[in-house]
Amino acid sequence: MTPTLSLRQIETTEPGAAPAPDGTPSLADMANAVRMLAVAGVEAAKSGHPGMPMGMADVATVLFTRVLRLDPARPDWPDRDRFVLSAGHGSMLQYALHHLLGYADMGLEELKRFRQLGSRAAGHPEYGHAQGIETTTGPLGQGLTTAVGMALAERHLNARFGDALVDHRTYVIAGDGCLMEGISQEAIDLAGQLRLSRLVVLWDDNGITIDGTTRLSTRTDQLIRFAASGWAVERVDAYDHAAIEAALLRAQASDRPTLIACRSVIGYGAPTKAGTCGVHGAPLGAEEARGAAQALGWDSPPFTVPDDILAAWRSVAQAGGQAREAWERRLAAHPARLDFQRVMATDAGPDLADALAAYRQELAQSRPTMATRKASQLVLGVVNAATDLTVGGSADLTHSNLTQTKGMAAMEADAYAGRYIHYGIREHAMAAVMNGLALHGGLIPYGGTFLVFSDYARGAIRLSALMGVRVIHVLTHDSIGLGEDGPTHQPVEHLAMLRATPNLHVFRPADAVETAECWELALTNPGTPSALCLSRQDLPTLRRDASWNRSATGAYILRETDGPRDATLLATGSEVALAVEAAERLAKEAIATAVVSMPCWELFERQSPASRALVLGSAPRIGVEAAVRFGWDRWLGDQGAFIGMEGFGASAPATDLYRHFGITVDAIMAAVRARVAHA
Amino acid sequence: MTPTLSLRQIETTEPGAAPAPDGTPSLADMANAVRMLAVAGVEAAKSGHPGMPMGMADVATVLFTRVLRLDPARPDWPDRDRFVLSAGHGSMLQYALHHLLGYADMGLEELKRFRQLGSRAAGHPEYGHAQGIETTTGPLGQGLTTAVGMALAERHLNARFGDALVDHRTYVIAGDGCLMEGISQEAIDLAGQLRLSRLVVLWDDNGITIDGTTRLSTRTDQLIRFAASGWAVERVDAYDHAAIEAALLRAQASDRPTLIACRSVIGYGAPTKAGTCGVHGAPLGAEEARGAAQALGWDSPPFTVPDDILAAWRSVAQAGGQAREAWERRLAAHPARLDFQRVMATDAGPDLADALAAYRQELAQSRPTMATRKASQLVLGVVNAATDLTVGGSADLTHSNLTQTKGMAAMEADAYAGRYIHYGIREHAMAAVMNGLALHGGLIPYGGTFLVFSDYARGAIRLSALMGVRVIHVLTHDSIGLGEDGPTHQPVEHLAMLRATPNLHVFRPADAVETAECWELALTNPGTPSALCLSRQDLPTLRRDASWNRSATGAYILRETDGPRDATLLATGSEVALAVEAAERLAKEAIATAVVSMPCWELFERQSPASRALVLGSAPRIGVEAAVRFGWDRWLGDQGAFIGMEGFGASAPATDLYRHFGITVDAIMAAVRARVAHA
Repeated sequence: MTPTLSLRQIETTEPGAAPAPDGTPSLADMANAVRMLAVAGVEAAKSGHPGMPMGMADVATVLFTRVLRLDPARPDWPDRDRFVLSAGHGSMLQYALHHLLGYADMGLEELKRFRQLGSRAAGHPEYGHAQGIETTTGPLGQGLTTAVGMALAERHLNARFGDALVDHRTYVIAGDGCLMEGISQEAIDLAGQLRLSRLVVLWDDNGITIDGTTRLSTRTDQLIRFAASGWAVERVDAYDHAAIEAALLRAQASDRPTLIACRSVIGYGAPTKAGTCGVHGAPLGAEEARGAAQALGWDSPPFTVPDDILAAWRSVAQAGGQAREAWERRLAAHPARLDFQRVMATDAGPDLADALAAYRQELAQSRPTMATRKASQLVLGVVNAATDLTVGGSADLTHSNLTQTKGMAAMEADAYAGRYIHYGIREHAMAAVMNGLALHGGLIPYGGTFLVFSDYARGAIRLSALMGVRVIHVLTHDSIGLGEDGPTHQPVEHLAMLRATPNLHVFRPADAVETAECWELALTNPGTPSALCLSRQDLPTLRRDASWNRSATGAYILRETDGPRDATLLATGSEVALAVEAAERLAKEAIATAVVSMPCWELFERQSPASRALVLGSAPRIGVEAAVRFGWDRWLGDQGAFIGMEGFGASAPATDLYRHFGITVDAIMAAVRARVAHA
Repeated sequence: MTPTLSLRQIETTEPGAAPAPDGTPSLADMANAVRMLAVAGVEAAKSGHPGMPMGMADVATVLFTRVLRLDPARPDWPDRDRFVLSAGHGSMLQYALHHLLGYADMGLEELKRFRQLGSRAAGHPEYGHAQGIETTTGPLGQGLTTAVGMALAERHLNARFGDALVDHRTYVIAGDGCLMEGISQEAIDLAGQLRLSRLVVLWDDNGITIDGTTRLSTRTDQLIRFAASGWAVERVDAYDHAAIEAALLRAQASDRPTLIACRSVIGYGAPTKAGTCGVHGAPLGAEEARGAAQALGWDSPPFTVPDDILAAWRSVAQAGGQAREAWERRLAAHPARLDFQRVMATDAGPDLADALAAYRQELAQSRPTMATRKASQLVLGVVNAATDLTVGGSADLTHSNLTQTKGMAAMEADAYAGRYIHYGIREHAMAAVMNGLALHGGLIPYGGTFLVFSDYARGAIRLSALMGVRVIHVLTHDSIGLGEDGPTHQPVEHLAMLRATPNLHVFRPADAVETAECWELALTNPGTPSALCLSRQDLPTLRRDASWNRSATGAYILRETDGPRDATLLATGSEVALAVEAAERLAKEAIATAVVSMPCWELFERQSPASRALVLGSAPRIGVEAAVRFGWDRWLGDQGAFIGMEGFGASAPATDLYRHFGITVDAIMAAVRARVAHA
């Protein structure tokens, strides 16, 4: 723990709190309003993180008053600057700013109910809870990486629509934790590679983490680190308003992303706790809060902002409104207006649905034998031709994930109009950047890796589900069917992991037709991210009827029996073909076996109990999936059985592995016979 | 894709293949043996990655012949150097080296069966499959980070036992992918912070990834990046043997970890494919393989190594054997011999079990009301006093995870004997470093973070389960019970995610007594990692009888009914107390309700079906857990119900959240009544 700063030390670095000569409030006054609202919010909640808002209030005030361009009256203005509080635990900083700027939904009553049930001022900034929150943050490093996606979306749309319509910046406040998390390196490397000059990261360089001084856990020189990846770097005193503004203006002029290290004091103003980890994640306490007010020369009661200071903040908002109106006029006169509005609505529309419906039927007729990853590529060819909203990519497995389609150029530093992103070997960043692309608006991102490496992307996948953004994960090599690469590359628990996650649609199509259906469902659901789990190995086309999207109900009877069922086989993906073959062979033994394909459990769960019962039937059920049983008991019932994996896979050709692990037509038939004999 | 290198270009950089003047094989000959065995293995398997072994064969040959110290006849020699192939897809490099060095279990027949079922030469190096494989690699960045743990274990044990017994180094071969993955930054930062001078990373700097040239996805200057975190950095030609050796010797003398960037050509020697991504992950094909042999001046048939070259390799092993024998002599004469052997056996022994049994009974008598995270800290106080094998730590949440106990000093650059590691805000590295600490031997590592951030560590947690190493994850704040931090911090699907993972014990103790029991089970199981999921909020002690470890069966009847059961409540962790209260109140309504506490599903699954049936009973069952239902149907049966979460949490005080989400005693009672009325 660093030695506690004395009040004197604070005073020496304190910004002049005196009003400017003309009587208007100073930036220091405006910053103190932010600071003391944050203190008050945390005190009222008896919970929260005052240290960061207190330390960074001046930086945030300069950013919001001098540089950032947004209109609180129109928080969805497409050309607004984006602000991301990557150090999300400092949420009161953002709520205080929003209140002062006059966001309609962030009245004082919200601040007073900070961290209480139903308040917009949640413990961490939650996308969708309050206007102007561009992304959910809290898990460290996510905001920074999501901002890379936003900044990239800006450059991409700028390349298409020009400066008149798309010309904004993305600003991030990040803490030490954001920079320690590995995902930050992926973000930094990628932003440097893509020369995202519209991205500015303000690092709250306070030298303190929860456990104490940062010297306990790091000796990295962050400026050198960022510079190594092609960033412009700056260092400023977090209370020197002119220096902060100058650094921000240099960042605006830079041809590279910029890191501004802001040398700050955590809990700035707190008489005994400033500069210590004691102020990081706990309320100041009444006495320390009073002491802070005194030290800062702030004499208004908690949650009270003097009229002149409030007026100064509101005038900032007014300037933003004027900028927005000027933009509206440019838009109205712009030849690409309708196209721009169509893109920003991010609705693929009926053209896409029609194209996919036609293609689905084509596949049902041609009945190809192919891996679903290959079918996915064919479908994507149709998709990417039918809409210009999609932006693809892969974490360096383009030719394995088959995510690139004909004519899809790379989105690069000097060619942002491309629609394909080489994310590099960075699954976590890919998922978070896709969140940013989707949150920006105007794009539907999809990106590929192996299903097993969804492990690396978990943090960002979870956030996409929590926020409800349309991001599509193309997860190929979805079982032991990938063969020789062995257990490190063979997912067995990943379907369960993804299915357990709320508000995530996990698709595992059985053939080319279902692949087209699942893509359609993923693309047309704006409030839910999707994971498409696709086979490496070839699979037969099982579906003959493609007149409607049968995957839309999540599970359906692919093969029905003529009379009463003796058994029902439930299967997904590559194992559906095994189930169908088993059922056909059992029919020759006069055992009536239905086959249910279950491409999406979450959609099936949403059907009525009666509909589900109809599909599942009352005969004994046997689940078949080349994965662990975990989660399957939901569908199997007390009489059920399961054929799948009991542990990790192995390295061998796929056919050997299926035999070795007993996931075979014979095993299915034996299980059915045992059940039928038992019944 | 970079332009294909012509054969001429390869020739100009080719090392002299002519024998040394004295007739002994040259290093180039020895390297070509590695290279051509790798080519042959991949050709035979028709699958694999020849490019990396071909590119790095010379570097590996210099490393293994001039620097690395190990004895193939005693692969478990504690003071051996550790070698980690972080770029695990180049596994044939390691298998070829092992064969040439004379590892008894890596005969030619294994190489010929590369990637076939049951071969020790699996697709990626698998810990436990073959001698000398120090860790499982394949998921990129893991090997590098695990090696940080090994190098740290060496320094820690060196601080305790001195140079005579512990004086070895850890060498890593890493690829571009390893350095792009975010986890690498966590590893680099941590290794620099801890000044792990015994760690040397050889970077296969070939400028190629699967998708093509690295210019597609990165412009980071890796040397500057590593230097920014306090590493020594070198750059060498991957075919200049003298330069490689000189760099390795400088690394040995450095007081910092060293990165050696080895400028290599992927697929070195392949006439048309060298230097391209075409040689990364696919066999060369017969013609290209022949061309490579020709270009390299190699005229032996596949899988054949000339006697003199084999003899040269075997003499390297002989020198290693002599070093090992000298060490054995030092050990025999060392005053700390017995203590060293005890530590390296890494068996906490009966003292620990006795201490924990006594403490468990003390807790059952004192019946404290406390959070299980707090109980965990008390238990750890007993554990850390009873054994010196444990090494604790936290990802910057020490005072939340409560992982540090009295007198536990930090393990630091100048004080390696400490037993507490400040991992920083790096959950992924923490998990991988713990893998390395455990794999090294002599240590039982545990480390803390919030349960929700197990997301960030998934990749490494999975590997610990796959390898079967004793790593203990202390995952506190295990539900909405953490309150105000909100949904980003509240795990709802994480219990399911962890339970779905094979060979991982997921413990969720209900009170202080169970916490002690679960710790004992985690510590005494050497082949399985554990996750202890602990509450933030206070819980009553429910157990009165602690005469034996009841958690050992995974689930047990905490509260039985006098007569036949009307219902059985199944619960874990903080919800067990709710179930007990509901049962007690229902008893007053003459409804007989048993309560089963289920601290570890995996252990319960291992009980006989009859034992399980006895515990679960035949009355309707109601599961109660402040998490999603996913996975619970395994225990609920067709008549079952579940009380828990249906989606993400929210930001509010914990008691408000339990009420809001309907996880209450009243809700449990209502569910029981409904079932009983229905029956």
